[in-house]
Amino acid sequence: MSLNKQVKIILIETSNSGNIGSTLRAMKTMGFSNLCLVKPKNFPSDDVVALAANASDLINSVEVVDNLEEAIDGCKLIIGTSSRERKVPWPNESIVTAAPKIIAESKKKNTVAILFGKEDRGLTNDELQRCNLHMHIPANKDYPVLNLAMSVQVVCYQLFISDALKTNPEISEYWDVPLAEANHVNRLIEHFIAVAEKLEVFNKGNPRQIGARIKRLFTRIGLDEMEVNFLRGFLAAIEKKLEDK
Amino acid sequence: MSLNKQVKIILIETSNSGNIGSTLRAMKTMGFSNLCLVKPKNFPSDDVVALAANASDLINSVEVVDNLEEAIDGCKLIIGTSSRERKVPWPNESIVTAAPKIIAESKKKNTVAILFGKEDRGLTNDELQRCNLHMHIPANKDYPVLNLAMSVQVVCYQLFISDALKTNPEISEYWDVPLAEANHVNRLIEHFIAVAEKLEVFNKGNPRQIGARIKRLFTRIGLDEMEVNFLRGFLAAIEKKLEDK
Repeated sequence: MSLNKQVKIILIETSNSGNIGSTLRAMKTMGFSNLCLVKPKNFPSDDVVALAANASDLINSVEVVDNLEEAIDGCKLIIGTSSRERKVPWPNESIVTAAPKIIAESKKKNTVAILFGKEDRGLTNDELQRCNLHMHIPANKDYPVLNLAMSVQVVCYQLFISDALKTNPEISEYWDVPLAEANHVNRLIEHFIAVAEKLEVFNKGNPRQIGARIKRLFTRIGLDEMEVNFLRGFLAAIEKKLEDK
Repeated sequence: MSLNKQVKIILIETSNSGNIGSTLRAMKTMGFSNLCLVKPKNFPSDDVVALAANASDLINSVEVVDNLEEAIDGCKLIIGTSSRERKVPWPNESIVTAAPKIIAESKKKNTVAILFGKEDRGLTNDELQRCNLHMHIPANKDYPVLNLAMSVQVVCYQLFISDALKTNPEISEYWDVPLAEANHVNRLIEHFIAVAEKLEVFNKGNPRQIGARIKRLFTRIGLDEMEVNFLRGFLAAIEKKLEDK
């Protein structure tokens, strides 16, 4: 498995070097390797090596910089992780919905930076303002405070899952039917929209973006081959009835 | 938010007491509180308190027992976590597909035990044979070795997500349309099957379980209200055309 280098994890002013080692291990278990440290308190150190375990091979390629500007230089999408503060006036997306967008950017060979702030206070307002998107991990609202390396583990896990559900048949091996190929899903979407037009359901007070909504619906499901075949048959049967009229 | 007590996390012979503290913190961040330790090497200890952080209130309710039999007494479903070993002849389900089943059992007030083995070697074959189900965390196949507390964090996160996607509107608040109520989805499924019968698509070489497959398809998507309304309109338009014939 080749490691994903387009997702760049950036830890800012990390105090506990054990967290850096744990972060490397967490990243490698989910197939990521691109770590950048902004002014770490203590790096490298024995704690980093100990906690990185079998991810210690990544230590030599960790980038260490003096400020956030250097860290995000060349990145196309900058994401700040932040527990969801209702006071903050800008949108804070869940990692669940953000993950597919991050993976899509990384597949386009665009580097996505994901920022994690200091252990005790998270990202500052200045740092958050440098981001295109704020993102949180869904959690117990009474105690949403994950340890730093745990947060990296969960973010990387969700990215791995989002990627694997789309592209990796291994994750779906306990599903009884193989997942459909993307082009089969695309042909289903085109077919569905064509039939919907023949049925004139677009004209009955539906919002304009309904085509986009249908695409979103069928793309996010993760349809399997049997479902695609059945739905194609369903659409073909409608067309047949329409022709018979 | 009330903590889920029906999911019982069981750590067997944990060597590093810091891992126990980190596990408590990981559990509480995702709304779980029921921890049982089988022969921990060192508990309670200062490390447990330090790493539990603001989950240290849970330390007093941790159950400590001498063997696995006591730990799983009264549990309805016993799940063993194990990285996916291709040599092992029994099925090992992904946490992604197992999570909804675990949550469903816990909602029925059945206690589900999730076992985690020793840090260095995981669950023994004897322990695995006590389980109804083996479960793994999808991970980098070249290095799938998550730290113990990290594994608990990811499992609890996936359970939280699976639960929240179904029952908690907060997680979908950045979706632009509210998620559909379960009974609206059920009526859509009934409507869909009725139309499919009228179109006679069940008779064309489709496997018998196609009704169950349609239910599974529409239930797992997480349809929003606008999608349900559009699909109902789509089905109604087909019926209208069939009547006009």
